[in-house]
Amino acid sequence: MSKYKMAEANNRIIPVEDKIFGINQKAKEMAAREGADKVVNATIGSLLDDDGNLVILSSVVEVLKNLTPNDYADYAPIAGTPDFIKAIKKAAFGRFVPKSYTETVATPGGTGAIRNTIQNYSKRGDQVLTSDWYWSPYSTIAQDIERSIATYTLFDEEGRFHVASFESKIKELLSKQDGLVILLNTPAHNPTGYSLTLEDWDKIIKVVKAAAAEDSKKITLLIDVAYLDYAGDEEEHRKFFPLLDDFPANILVVVSYSLSKSYTMYGMRSGAMICMTREKEIAEEFKTVCGFSSRGTWSNCNRAAMATLSNIYADEALLAKVTHERQDYCKMLVERGHTFAKAAKEAGLKTVPFEAGFFVTVPCENADAVGLALQKEGIFTVPVGKGLRVSVASISEEKCRLLPPIILEAINTVNS
Amino acid sequence: MSKYKMAEANNRIIPVEDKIFGINQKAKEMAAREGADKVVNATIGSLLDDDGNLVILSSVVEVLKNLTPNDYADYAPIAGTPDFIKAIKKAAFGRFVPKSYTETVATPGGTGAIRNTIQNYSKRGDQVLTSDWYWSPYSTIAQDIERSIATYTLFDEEGRFHVASFESKIKELLSKQDGLVILLNTPAHNPTGYSLTLEDWDKIIKVVKAAAAEDSKKITLLIDVAYLDYAGDEEEHRKFFPLLDDFPANILVVVSYSLSKSYTMYGMRSGAMICMTREKEIAEEFKTVCGFSSRGTWSNCNRAAMATLSNIYADEALLAKVTHERQDYCKMLVERGHTFAKAAKEAGLKTVPFEAGFFVTVPCENADAVGLALQKEGIFTVPVGKGLRVSVASISEEKCRLLPPIILEAINTVNS
Repeated sequence: MSKYKMAEANNRIIPVEDKIFGINQKAKEMAAREGADKVVNATIGSLLDDDGNLVILSSVVEVLKNLTPNDYADYAPIAGTPDFIKAIKKAAFGRFVPKSYTETVATPGGTGAIRNTIQNYSKRGDQVLTSDWYWSPYSTIAQDIERSIATYTLFDEEGRFHVASFESKIKELLSKQDGLVILLNTPAHNPTGYSLTLEDWDKIIKVVKAAAAEDSKKITLLIDVAYLDYAGDEEEHRKFFPLLDDFPANILVVVSYSLSKSYTMYGMRSGAMICMTREKEIAEEFKTVCGFSSRGTWSNCNRAAMATLSNIYADEALLAKVTHERQDYCKMLVERGHTFAKAAKEAGLKTVPFEAGFFVTVPCENADAVGLALQKEGIFTVPVGKGLRVSVASISEEKCRLLPPIILEAINTVNS
Repeated sequence: MSKYKMAEANNRIIPVEDKIFGINQKAKEMAAREGADKVVNATIGSLLDDDGNLVILSSVVEVLKNLTPNDYADYAPIAGTPDFIKAIKKAAFGRFVPKSYTETVATPGGTGAIRNTIQNYSKRGDQVLTSDWYWSPYSTIAQDIERSIATYTLFDEEGRFHVASFESKIKELLSKQDGLVILLNTPAHNPTGYSLTLEDWDKIIKVVKAAAAEDSKKITLLIDVAYLDYAGDEEEHRKFFPLLDDFPANILVVVSYSLSKSYTMYGMRSGAMICMTREKEIAEEFKTVCGFSSRGTWSNCNRAAMATLSNIYADEALLAKVTHERQDYCKMLVERGHTFAKAAKEAGLKTVPFEAGFFVTVPCENADAVGLALQKEGIFTVPVGKGLRVSVASISEEKCRLLPPIILEAINTVNS
């Protein structure tokens, strides 16, 4: 029996309201009631300037406003326009040119890429592996197609990547299912802000290769690089890509690259899934099956965003302009994160290992209660299981300095 | 065992290439090789002018080019911006204001609305009912989420809506499953160009109500109105909506409205699913479950298209301008269809009952072979099971006049 009058639950647990949206709404209501200066809204997953306005790359908007009528109106091919496919590979990989076979399928942002990967590289009932700290929509995506999320422990007691947990969880899942999608979100992981180091990557690759030693096992390494361009140095954070260029055929790499953050085109809904494999046939089936899923889910993707990226990559000066504009904002973001981390250290507030990105996470007991206590003081964060996610992307550097002692006090009061 | 090396088939039959895309490609290649004047490309599902250029409403492009930076950049709420939700209900229903509870969820075009309806109002393994002539992506959509399409016979021997077939197929399916999604594409049905008459609707409603007489049966009437604004008179073709306003609670109406054709924003990927139900609770669960599916599939939808529609509906003069511009093109399209129908009659070529819209369908034996024979003469159409779909949307009125005798000859030659 469905719990609904007309709808089918289809093995999903569907909340009446999205958690983040609900808290954000409360922050907005308080700001309207008591004044914006009384509220610190650290819930939002978009980069805002110090006045709380969305950061928009003006160089990108300029391109978007001056497309041809056709670019606004016409359908794009399901996999994306040829120019877009070329451009987004450069956007994702930077200077690195894979020797693997790569095929690309356009998607509505990173969400579409993650959905299509899970849909085509796992079966109904399968579990998809990610870390215990994870972006909650991963579970929504998995559930909607009747999969679920399993987790390993991201950090060991020294705050390093917990390779033993990663390894044992893979083994456990591969004893129950023949295929496994492993979802890694790096660099500048949401919600912790952690970036896998090259040493972490070496360990991951070793574990994954060992797990795929039996030909009957198939592993898909899905790498969500949504925050790739906000992790600090752009080339530095792309150095892990070459390490993925030498897998056996039964390990498929899928890179989920989104234009939402990197080109501040959140609302356009554009991105792509790019595969890396040593076998041409596997790359071709990737394009076929993912194209089929696209056709049967959202059809083609937004052409205006494709044209915008294509135009940017067709013009070196324009590309440099966009890149510099983004780098300035990235610097602002990284400084906010470091300010928060420094103030946390000074106050004695523990954070989950953080390097850069939109979010910092503070581990604590009774996160929901701590979140509510902070809301009374006008501070809005997102409880994420075992802690609070603080969006440094949406608050000023000054607020990053002021928050840690207040959060610490709330934790101590609630848990005393 | 999956037929793929890495991907999972997941009960789908996935063609290597999309059929329509493949034929369109062949038409383009022949035009490049032998000259555009040697080719009649009647495969395309977009409205082209007599010179083969995409018809684009300039009044819409003007709005699209002058949005605020925020409208290009920011995320929209999952269900759509409040202004968009208001505007798209007006766009879909015209002057009609339902007394039913209506809730709206934004989708990437009609495809997204159809996907979300099947996803939330049927179960894995269920069959979804549509007519024997149908737009082939319906099957792609159903398959990707492990459902399938069942069909009734659209026309009886007199070329009228085949109510007996419709009724018996519903009974058959409801003897096997408790819920049923019935997918109707009207007016100006793709691929036949048929519009259900008000008399057809009366019969349909009677049958559906009788089928839902047992409370344990749940019927979702999904109406794909993609061609609503190209069927002829706009108000005339919206007269069926009030007939849907008086169903019992276990019949849910979902209207799939797309901005692709009506606002020539094909490539923007915008539309919505709008429910009609007599129970508030059912409308609310519609919003909850479809919003969850959106969140877990494509996340939010294109904000620029939402802002464009909102701006158009906020300005009466602008709305009138857009409407008039569209009406002129609609007139051109309707004339093409009538010219084709008249020439077919004169030549003695049978067509499937046609009223208006982008396509005319010619029934014939060995449609694939007839299609190939026509390709040799530079005429490209789409074989659709028991006939050939001819896009009058993509060829001039003159070509509409010339084609019927040529098609008839090809049919006779192949089948002689």
